[in-house]
Amino acid sequence: MKKHNFSAGPSILDESVIRDAAGAVLNYQGTGLSILEVSHRAKEFSATMEEARNLMKELLDVPEGYEVLFLGGGASLQFAQVPMNLLKKKAAYVDSGTWANKAAKEAKAFGEVITFSSKEDNYIWYPKPWEKNEVPDDIDYLHITTNNTVYGTELRYDPDVKVRLVGDMSSDIFTRPVDVSKYDLIYGGAQKNIAPAGVTFVIVRRDAVGHIEDNRIIPTMLKYDVHFKDSMYNTPPVFPVYVALQTMKWYKELGGVKVLEQMNLEKAGMLYDEIDRNRLFRGTVNAEDRSIMNVCFVLNDEYKELEQEFYDFAVSRGAYSFKGHRSVGGFRASLYNALPKSSVQFFIDLMKEFERKH
Amino acid sequence: MKKHNFSAGPSILDESVIRDAAGAVLNYQGTGLSILEVSHRAKEFSATMEEARNLMKELLDVPEGYEVLFLGGGASLQFAQVPMNLLKKKAAYVDSGTWANKAAKEAKAFGEVITFSSKEDNYIWYPKPWEKNEVPDDIDYLHITTNNTVYGTELRYDPDVKVRLVGDMSSDIFTRPVDVSKYDLIYGGAQKNIAPAGVTFVIVRRDAVGHIEDNRIIPTMLKYDVHFKDSMYNTPPVFPVYVALQTMKWYKELGGVKVLEQMNLEKAGMLYDEIDRNRLFRGTVNAEDRSIMNVCFVLNDEYKELEQEFYDFAVSRGAYSFKGHRSVGGFRASLYNALPKSSVQFFIDLMKEFERKH
Repeated sequence: MKKHNFSAGPSILDESVIRDAAGAVLNYQGTGLSILEVSHRAKEFSATMEEARNLMKELLDVPEGYEVLFLGGGASLQFAQVPMNLLKKKAAYVDSGTWANKAAKEAKAFGEVITFSSKEDNYIWYPKPWEKNEVPDDIDYLHITTNNTVYGTELRYDPDVKVRLVGDMSSDIFTRPVDVSKYDLIYGGAQKNIAPAGVTFVIVRRDAVGHIEDNRIIPTMLKYDVHFKDSMYNTPPVFPVYVALQTMKWYKELGGVKVLEQMNLEKAGMLYDEIDRNRLFRGTVNAEDRSIMNVCFVLNDEYKELEQEFYDFAVSRGAYSFKGHRSVGGFRASLYNALPKSSVQFFIDLMKEFERKH
Repeated sequence: MKKHNFSAGPSILDESVIRDAAGAVLNYQGTGLSILEVSHRAKEFSATMEEARNLMKELLDVPEGYEVLFLGGGASLQFAQVPMNLLKKKAAYVDSGTWANKAAKEAKAFGEVITFSSKEDNYIWYPKPWEKNEVPDDIDYLHITTNNTVYGTELRYDPDVKVRLVGDMSSDIFTRPVDVSKYDLIYGGAQKNIAPAGVTFVIVRRDAVGHIEDNRIIPTMLKYDVHFKDSMYNTPPVFPVYVALQTMKWYKELGGVKVLEQMNLEKAGMLYDEIDRNRLFRGTVNAEDRSIMNVCFVLNDEYKELEQEFYDFAVSRGAYSFKGHRSVGGFRASLYNALPKSSVQFFIDLMKEFERKH
């Protein structure tokens, strides 16, 4: 039975990328060695790292003056590394969901943190303080988490603010064109739209770092600039970087981020249309802030008791990992770049069939 | 042509482990999904993580009261994380080589650091301050780097000291029995004897942490105890953890660390014997401190001009990644667990043949 992978992360990668990755595990670029056992200083891998950094710049149209890094430790480590390197006195965080909230908490160790939050409304809308001119001028940066994997909201544009802007794009990088020039730093775990778990990308403006006073201890590994040269200050996560490169090559073949955005809008549109049409289901967040990556929905109150039945029914047909996060309940279908339209149609057909049964 | 992989790291993994890893990339445990795209919270992977943690405890006979963690970020991040969590006032570091030196430097940000060093002798011997009763009583811990990949020295026993002991065993974990009870913390990058690059192991005594005063900022991700429960506080490096488990299963089949130690002693003995016998070559470190993992040697002075010729000759026959580190020169053959005896014999035969030519 074919599986349709709706996992929120680590999540689906394209079949061609997976086949290629398995091939590289057996024989990396004709070396006769596995990619798992070659030195990261070998010319084959330094070329892979360089190509990955350059292709990320190309696909996202990264301006001069920025570096692309592939690091270990996960986005959760960036929650601390960002304020450690950028927060002098005060920062503002848009508290748009679970991960944004964790990022803000971590920053509080390094300075004053003000938040713009929709937590009291269970994060069903995305706070946009710039629309009301509420972003203070005297902050070191404004931090946004552009997509909210747990609750299913998303900010699908790059806000204009007068202060430095930092974006956690763990779950929606490469899903739309991004105006990188508006940001000082963009980061994310790569395990949604790029690679398997184990590598974190950072796009950082060179002159954004180095302004923290000497009395703060910043471990060498957590200084962005030690990684600027080749993103190989220490042994990088070789295999995830290789897979990231393969994914980005596939994106380039498809036509780049504008094409990906159209595909994503179409897929998410199809599923939200069905949720809105189907009398059994309803979406959980405000329509204007709906994520095109993580589609969250529940059974309508009068059909609540059918939740387990729908879950079992969908699993029996091949749907994988589409349970809502425990803090939301219901269901969450994640529609990352590599999820084909046919899998979305498959899920819609399940919903229709389930509706006919009831 | 068969390649013989002498890379110092990332380095050789067993063929059966590599084949199994490639299989899991295509279909993970019969799920019909790649290990690269399953959720880390899926029952298949939580079981893998749990099994990996338990098998490490079993193979190393880890006593009660310790946790085994698999983290991201590399051993270089541990250079800071260890003093951040354990260094209150003063620590001592055995400066036995490049990596030990980096670890000591990083610790200086957190307190006073005294070192026992062989740097002035270009690290050709291993400092053992406990043999001369020179380890002070008033330190928070003594840090040792048990194997020195760059210069090729090794401490092949666990010293008795009255203070807390911390060991970086990046390049010799699983190569001999270790008395874990003598240590408060053992850590290492896994890319030598366990897994591909991208995962760091930590064996930590539960009660060793939590004694730092509140005025030091410790980012959540860098607190060891947040990872105690299941080593999944954040998304772990899924694939490297899986490969680590496969390697450890292979170690268990072979008979465990005592058997591995015998194999390693035999392999290293064979190669050092040839180095000592062959009139063209000589070892670079004191005989009693020779590493059984990284065998460093050079051409004797009168044959110095043959260096490039020997290198090209060995490469042409299938030897891979055996150049000495740039700070030492000459050659370095790394004989990690997964390197078969036949590859050592192959290298010895090359040396003999080269000797006959000259």
